[in-house]
Amino acid sequence: MLYKQIDTKKVRSFCEAVFAAYGFSVDESKIITDVLLRADLYGIESHGVQRLVRYHDEISSGQVDVRAKTQIVHETGISACIEANKAMGQLSGTEAMKLAVQKAKTTGCGMVTVRNSNHYGIAGYYTNMAADEDLIGVSMTNTEAICVPTFGSEAMTGTNAVALAMPASPFTFSFDASTTVVPRGTLEVFRKNDRPLPDNWALDANGNPCNDAGIVIDNIIAKGGGGIAPLGGLGTLNGGHKGYGFSVIVDLFTAVISSGLTSNHVNRIPGSTGICHYFMAIDYGIFGGKTAIKNNLSKFLQELRDSKKAEGQKRIYTHGEKEAETMAQRINGQIPVNEKTLDEMRAIAHKLGIEGI
Amino acid sequence: MLYKQIDTKKVRSFCEAVFAAYGFSVDESKIITDVLLRADLYGIESHGVQRLVRYHDEISSGQVDVRAKTQIVHETGISACIEANKAMGQLSGTEAMKLAVQKAKTTGCGMVTVRNSNHYGIAGYYTNMAADEDLIGVSMTNTEAICVPTFGSEAMTGTNAVALAMPASPFTFSFDASTTVVPRGTLEVFRKNDRPLPDNWALDANGNPCNDAGIVIDNIIAKGGGGIAPLGGLGTLNGGHKGYGFSVIVDLFTAVISSGLTSNHVNRIPGSTGICHYFMAIDYGIFGGKTAIKNNLSKFLQELRDSKKAEGQKRIYTHGEKEAETMAQRINGQIPVNEKTLDEMRAIAHKLGIEGI
Repeated sequence: MLYKQIDTKKVRSFCEAVFAAYGFSVDESKIITDVLLRADLYGIESHGVQRLVRYHDEISSGQVDVRAKTQIVHETGISACIEANKAMGQLSGTEAMKLAVQKAKTTGCGMVTVRNSNHYGIAGYYTNMAADEDLIGVSMTNTEAICVPTFGSEAMTGTNAVALAMPASPFTFSFDASTTVVPRGTLEVFRKNDRPLPDNWALDANGNPCNDAGIVIDNIIAKGGGGIAPLGGLGTLNGGHKGYGFSVIVDLFTAVISSGLTSNHVNRIPGSTGICHYFMAIDYGIFGGKTAIKNNLSKFLQELRDSKKAEGQKRIYTHGEKEAETMAQRINGQIPVNEKTLDEMRAIAHKLGIEGI
Repeated sequence: MLYKQIDTKKVRSFCEAVFAAYGFSVDESKIITDVLLRADLYGIESHGVQRLVRYHDEISSGQVDVRAKTQIVHETGISACIEANKAMGQLSGTEAMKLAVQKAKTTGCGMVTVRNSNHYGIAGYYTNMAADEDLIGVSMTNTEAICVPTFGSEAMTGTNAVALAMPASPFTFSFDASTTVVPRGTLEVFRKNDRPLPDNWALDANGNPCNDAGIVIDNIIAKGGGGIAPLGGLGTLNGGHKGYGFSVIVDLFTAVISSGLTSNHVNRIPGSTGICHYFMAIDYGIFGGKTAIKNNLSKFLQELRDSKKAEGQKRIYTHGEKEAETMAQRINGQIPVNEKTLDEMRAIAHKLGIEGI
């Protein structure tokens, strides 16, 4: 695939114009764009501007309601449950994490669960909002079902990402991972390159191991059975039952406690996705002196990076390190955009009657 | 290995007598025994009475201080940091979870971190204490380093278990897992049976994949390099970097925020282990009506169990189901005890001058 380097500023103003053209306010368009672009700045192409075309479809079909007003349906000093009313996930997500941060600053802890939202981009965006305020941030989201429980043949849980960030020096610890063995995007890359999948990753409609990415993806889209294995892979040999458990925990915090839709019911009702999120902010000063605690983390992460490398390896990374490095390069520079994505962006601009990129 | 069925009551009174003989009070001996036996009742032999001999060594060597008094060194309405002063892990653990439960009942949430403790048994014991009070329970513990970071050759994090429980009908969702691909006990079984390890599990002292369980275990004990892969296995292909991240998160909540020892420093100082724990209780009523939320979880878990099975599979389990079934059988009946373990128990009784089993 060919990539073009495009000025980050140019991509940003283009995306802001796209979202404004859908009817979002200037502020809303800036927020959505900031979440989207952060993925490209971190080097996570799958959740960056290449996703514009999917957002376009969801907004056009009415699954995302441009005019949605979110509603707090339950609230305490440390918690809230938000009904998103089909809002853009990036808007309900940033609003919910802001509320969690505000509660954490007042009481030490804020937990906010969100139902009936939409895809919210990278989970790590929200946890870093908390880390930027010198708090621990946690975020989770469910998605439509793509992950098959151990011993099953039917996708029941989603990509179900978990993210956690905590400030450290020289950079924030920022973990962000799906609870599947690989996300769907990785299967798509294998299909495009006509490569067989590793043995441990996916199942066909009968629950048997499947190395054909095309079959697995087609089945996921058609809800025809099979799907991706949880982290740990198929069966229990490599801990697949643990990944399955983490995946259920994500649905517990996002959908169960918000009385929203669990992954197996997401994208099953015409006109809405029903995706649910969870956000938590913790002021780690509730456990002791913040300077000392932050230093403890910085020291531990440095010890991990400094620990002995495997033969042939030069670096041990801590989570968030690669993303921080990539962002430092790209923030005032350029983003590589796939030519196919560029074509999609231009087609969207044409449909919306705005200037192309 | 040969097993004998022993009356659960008999094992319980034997263990209580053992701990009383070390100098623990009657109440303390009952608590420690209850945690220990719960593992056998759940069918988790590795953390049950077979571990008595290790506790015997730790108490005899002074790593566990029988007379230790724990101390709250920092506290807020929703949090505490406890210095365990080398207390038995089961005592500091139950005390800390009780405190978290009490705070959750008052404020909606309680988070308690514990430093300078000892091995606390199964993490799931503590989360079920919270679930029994109709709360969500979370618990984590670090251990001595056995897990090698992605691209590393040196064990830096521990078995680092994570457990989460939430009440549901007909039984509590109860997840309890190490963040390594397998716990050390599984390697020990492979060594005993002279079986080669699967490719994805372990590393030698140079960080190369190793199929010889004996080499890996000897290296772990001698702190000679190498160890076990994180959940997801070696490298990044099957998500090993995610397991590595979960493992770091356990050290973050247990050791970093308590200003205790991270796994790579545990068991390095003569006379103490330095093991750290984390406990959290959440009243899920802070998000909405408890009956509705509990029903949401029960329904979702039932949907998982009822979902389509893979060819050749008869059941999909939800976490805690097997343990609940096994406990129902054993609680008023018998526990299978390995004959080697029985010999160890008798040797301990002999040393302590108490009646054998």
